[in-house]
Amino acid sequence: MMKNLTPMSEDFNQWYTDIIQEAELADYSPVKGTMVIRPYGYAIWENIQKYLDNRFKETGHKNAYFPLFIPKSFIEKEAEHVEGFSPELATVTHAGGKELDEPLIVRPTSETIINHMFSKWITSHRDLPMLINQWANVVRWEMRTRLFLRTSEFLWQEGHTAHATKEEANDEAIKMLNIYEEFVQNVAAVSVTKGLKSEIEKFAGAEKTYSIEAMMLDKKALQAGTSHELGQNFSKAFDIQYSDEKNKLQHPYQTSWGVSTRLIGMIIMAHGDDKGLKLPPNLAPIQVVIVPIIPKKDDKQLVMKKVEEINEILEKHRIEIDDRDEVSPGFKFNEWELKGVPVRIEVGPRDIKNNKVIVSRRDIDDSKQEVSFDNLSIEIDDLLTDIQNNMFKKSKDHMIRNTTHVESKDELIEKLIKTEGFVTCYWSENEKDEMEIKELTSATIRCYPLDNKEMKKSINHKDKEGFLTIFSKAY
Amino acid sequence: MMKNLTPMSEDFNQWYTDIIQEAELADYSPVKGTMVIRPYGYAIWENIQKYLDNRFKETGHKNAYFPLFIPKSFIEKEAEHVEGFSPELATVTHAGGKELDEPLIVRPTSETIINHMFSKWITSHRDLPMLINQWANVVRWEMRTRLFLRTSEFLWQEGHTAHATKEEANDEAIKMLNIYEEFVQNVAAVSVTKGLKSEIEKFAGAEKTYSIEAMMLDKKALQAGTSHELGQNFSKAFDIQYSDEKNKLQHPYQTSWGVSTRLIGMIIMAHGDDKGLKLPPNLAPIQVVIVPIIPKKDDKQLVMKKVEEINEILEKHRIEIDDRDEVSPGFKFNEWELKGVPVRIEVGPRDIKNNKVIVSRRDIDDSKQEVSFDNLSIEIDDLLTDIQNNMFKKSKDHMIRNTTHVESKDELIEKLIKTEGFVTCYWSENEKDEMEIKELTSATIRCYPLDNKEMKKSINHKDKEGFLTIFSKAY
Repeated sequence: MMKNLTPMSEDFNQWYTDIIQEAELADYSPVKGTMVIRPYGYAIWENIQKYLDNRFKETGHKNAYFPLFIPKSFIEKEAEHVEGFSPELATVTHAGGKELDEPLIVRPTSETIINHMFSKWITSHRDLPMLINQWANVVRWEMRTRLFLRTSEFLWQEGHTAHATKEEANDEAIKMLNIYEEFVQNVAAVSVTKGLKSEIEKFAGAEKTYSIEAMMLDKKALQAGTSHELGQNFSKAFDIQYSDEKNKLQHPYQTSWGVSTRLIGMIIMAHGDDKGLKLPPNLAPIQVVIVPIIPKKDDKQLVMKKVEEINEILEKHRIEIDDRDEVSPGFKFNEWELKGVPVRIEVGPRDIKNNKVIVSRRDIDDSKQEVSFDNLSIEIDDLLTDIQNNMFKKSKDHMIRNTTHVESKDELIEKLIKTEGFVTCYWSENEKDEMEIKELTSATIRCYPLDNKEMKKSINHKDKEGFLTIFSKAY
Repeated sequence: MMKNLTPMSEDFNQWYTDIIQEAELADYSPVKGTMVIRPYGYAIWENIQKYLDNRFKETGHKNAYFPLFIPKSFIEKEAEHVEGFSPELATVTHAGGKELDEPLIVRPTSETIINHMFSKWITSHRDLPMLINQWANVVRWEMRTRLFLRTSEFLWQEGHTAHATKEEANDEAIKMLNIYEEFVQNVAAVSVTKGLKSEIEKFAGAEKTYSIEAMMLDKKALQAGTSHELGQNFSKAFDIQYSDEKNKLQHPYQTSWGVSTRLIGMIIMAHGDDKGLKLPPNLAPIQVVIVPIIPKKDDKQLVMKKVEEINEILEKHRIEIDDRDEVSPGFKFNEWELKGVPVRIEVGPRDIKNNKVIVSRRDIDDSKQEVSFDNLSIEIDDLLTDIQNNMFKKSKDHMIRNTTHVESKDELIEKLIKTEGFVTCYWSENEKDEMEIKELTSATIRCYPLDNKEMKKSINHKDKEGFLTIFSKAY
């Protein structure tokens, strides 16, 4: 199995493509640009869903489901929205054996259809805030696709909310951004920077787009989630009106926010090494794999009895017992390392005699240690916590180490061309300058970090101040 | 609110349409034949998913995700399959601003694309059984649609499995049918009959189709779930082969099985009355609603403190506190009855003084009773169990009471024309006779019940024996 995995150190892109197939996370489908998410990859998605869905509900959101097909005329109602999405649309022209009167768009996102429904459901200030989320598939016809990162169809959640005031809508957009940050940092163990997108990079139809930006192991940026303040753009386009407490008709202020199966791509590229994946314990479909060591057939009963005991002791964790006869322990070790399982336990007749097991952690090389059987439950608890924290710390250190600050435009361009990583500077928002940097370096503004509100002299305009800005090449 | 609900006793179909909108389960969408599932309806679907997903995993199945779009040529590979689905297909002809070389079908079901992938993944007998499930949306362009029961897009799960032997495949099909029966009876509180479909009614491409058939309150049948034994039809069409233990190439035997958002339609029509929905406690998004009674403003603090205490005592249940100021208790009672919440608790200052609360159950008319505050937790536990059991018993009695057995073909036709309900007889499978009954009565064979294996003289052929058969009009 390992023979088909290009080492990360040799070719990061090829490693990414290989590991997805070798670890059976996903597979290419016969339809160009789409993918099949295999059970091991889907189990990661289910863990992402479980955590986020719970947090969405705790913060008052309710799930609903809206149609896959959107009338073409709906997409055209918000001018910037249609401009942004037009090149990527897939269109149903025939159904039930007939040509349709109006072509139907396969949803690239659901602002238009959801806001059409909001215009029926929202009539009074008592209907606000309206807090809706949808788990769904969406289609954006991409020219160059990449498993998990950019596929013509992907799975995601899209939150859509309506509020009485602009301030409330902005608070909501920030609240959901914070939940994404919390998930990515505490569960996926990936360090992120929260920030505001530049005008060029914001969502088609939004007033403001916030994002969380992560740094991959090849030092490129990855946008891991976005949260948009939509202002009244859609509520006006779709004629959503409510009567306020003084019985006056008002358009609500809105947000939308989403994360997708792209997060799986992020998790792969933020951790991992030449041997394969490294999955953070809080997200891993299998947290602990138990490999019985059976030198002689006669030992089998004894060892398997112990394995069952261990399984019971660790029952609150997600455990896999690998009792295959047809492959060697060494083969199994490689396979579970490839699949990124955080902890491996080996147990054989000699260990049983000594009342211990052998424990290895995936996040640190050559980490075998003996653990007394009596302490197993506590030791594994502590170990999983330690792995989770260590993986996050590594990700954070990596981001800090590969972020450079520059004081001039020339220096910015030079850094972006010569090195990978984040480059920060003070920048005065200006479309022309931004496009120039992009053309010269292929890097873009990732965000204006939210934790730095200070304005300083900008590097791109001698008379203007600007906010701290992160530039980077990105996925 | 109640004024928009046509009484069930007056017009069952109109009641069904009204209650879905009045209880905010679903809404019509601007795209013909599709629907929006609103939060209250979607919460029922989430509870259905939670139970079934858990049972699928307990029985060794893993979730995965396959593409929405299927190449037209795939659908055409299995002859009966394409014949069955052709009239209902929706086709994408344009994407990314260009006409596609090969049109893409929006999946009506995923046998073809999944079996294409199986042909890559299954190579050895060690890969079997392969047990996959997918939660997804599917599209079947229907001419006459009805919310939840028949919509152009619906949500479902589809299981797809491959096995070494025909017997194993049949065991799997029956196992999953049993899980559907268990869910519908124990959770949805609806009585069903398990059976085999006739040749005419079976799934396009199957060897055998099993189904569970429920009886609605208007005495029509509803097919609540199906499980198919596919034989080698798809494994041959998609060239799935594995080497067996003797290194010989074999085609596996397969199954597929599914239930959909149609189940929500079943739950509505199997319970309910003139006042609205009746939801079984095991499935209800809200199991207990607490309505504070506040005669004077001064009482508010006292009452709300008690309400919070009750909420804590009942924390393991799904509770809603209706503390709206702008509507009266009477309005709230009607609304929660309409929404089918199984138990209502009222509590006011006088109740608090007497250390009791007023408890009403939705399944029985005028059932108010006083419950001592000290026994509340146990009493509510018992009450919810009792409601669940009582609702199932009612459903079962209804089915038994409205099933008649006939001894001749004339009698069969007369019963099916004159009365509603299930009509049973011994029937010798024959397509011509079956079509004749359908044309004369609009009833169809629902199934050959599995619990009756005895053959007796058939009513449609003087020389042939047949199995017990259920005829009925159906949704």
